[in-house]
Amino acid sequence: MVDILHRVGVETPAPDKVYEALATVDGLRGWWTGDTEEHDGKLQFRFPAGGFDMEVVEARPHERVAWRVVDGPEEWVGTTISWDLRQEGGYTIVLFKHEGWREPVEFMHHCSTKWATYLMSLKSSVETGKGAPAPNDVHVDDWD
Amino acid sequence: MVDILHRVGVETPAPDKVYEALATVDGLRGWWTGDTEEHDGKLQFRFPAGGFDMEVVEARPHERVAWRVVDGPEEWVGTTISWDLRQEGGYTIVLFKHEGWREPVEFMHHCSTKWATYLMSLKSSVETGKGAPAPNDVHVDDWD
Repeated sequence: MVDILHRVGVETPAPDKVYEALATVDGLRGWWTGDTEEHDGKLQFRFPAGGFDMEVVEARPHERVAWRVVDGPEEWVGTTISWDLRQEGGYTIVLFKHEGWREPVEFMHHCSTKWATYLMSLKSSVETGKGAPAPNDVHVDDWD
Repeated sequence: MVDILHRVGVETPAPDKVYEALATVDGLRGWWTGDTEEHDGKLQFRFPAGGFDMEVVEARPHERVAWRVVDGPEEWVGTTISWDLRQEGGYTIVLFKHEGWREPVEFMHHCSTKWATYLMSLKSSVETGKGAPAPNDVHVDDWD
C-alpha cells in the first residue's frame, strides 16, 4: 500500500474558509478546477485532459472531508482522498492523504507532485482570494 | 514502508543540466539551499532550521543520483533519496523517491509537500537560471 501524503498550513484565523474551499462547489472551483459541478450527489471535476467523479463519504464541518473516486483514470478508481483540518495559532493545518493506490506507478509520482501544487493553490485561494485552478494551474511535467 | 514520490519534467534538450544541478555543489546551491558544502565526501545541506548530511551512494552521469542520509532529523537518518533521469523529447523527466521512512508521521506529510516545491525550484533553476533555494524557498506551512 502506497499513499500520497501532504501537509500545508493556511494562514487564516479559523478553519471555516478552508472547509468551504473543500466542501462547496464554488470553493473547489477556486483552487482545483474551474470546471467543477455537483450532480446526483457526486462531485464532477473536469480538466483539459480528463476528469474525476467523486462521492463525498465524509464532510464534518471544519474538521474533515473525504471523497471516494468513482470514475476517472483506472489507477484512481476506488482510491480515497481525505483532508483533515485543525487550527494551530494563525494556521489551519491541512493533512492530505490520497490512499489506496495499488502500485507506485509513474503516474502516482506525477499525481503526488501535482497534488502539492494544488494544495499550494488551495492555500493561496484562502489567503489571497486567488488560487491557480485548472486550466490556469502550475504545470509540473510533460503530462500536464 | 511508506515513500515520498514525485515526478517533474524539466524543459531542456538533454539531461546534462539537470544532472549538474543534482551532482555538483554549485548546482545544488541553485535550487535546494544556498548553504551547501562538500566535506570528506559528504554533502552538507543547511537551512535556517537545521540541516542534513548525505553520503552520495550513486552518481551515474545523466542517469541517476542517490544519497543516504547520515545526519539530520531522526526520521531522516538512514533513509535514501534518489533521482532517476531520462530524456523524453524536450523534457528531462525526473523521478524522485525518498524511501525508508519508518512511519507516515506528520513530518513526512510536510516533507512530501516541501520536496515538491523544491523539485519545482530545481525545474525552474534549469529552465530559467533562477530557482528558489533556502532561505528564499516557498513556505508550505507553519513548520517552515
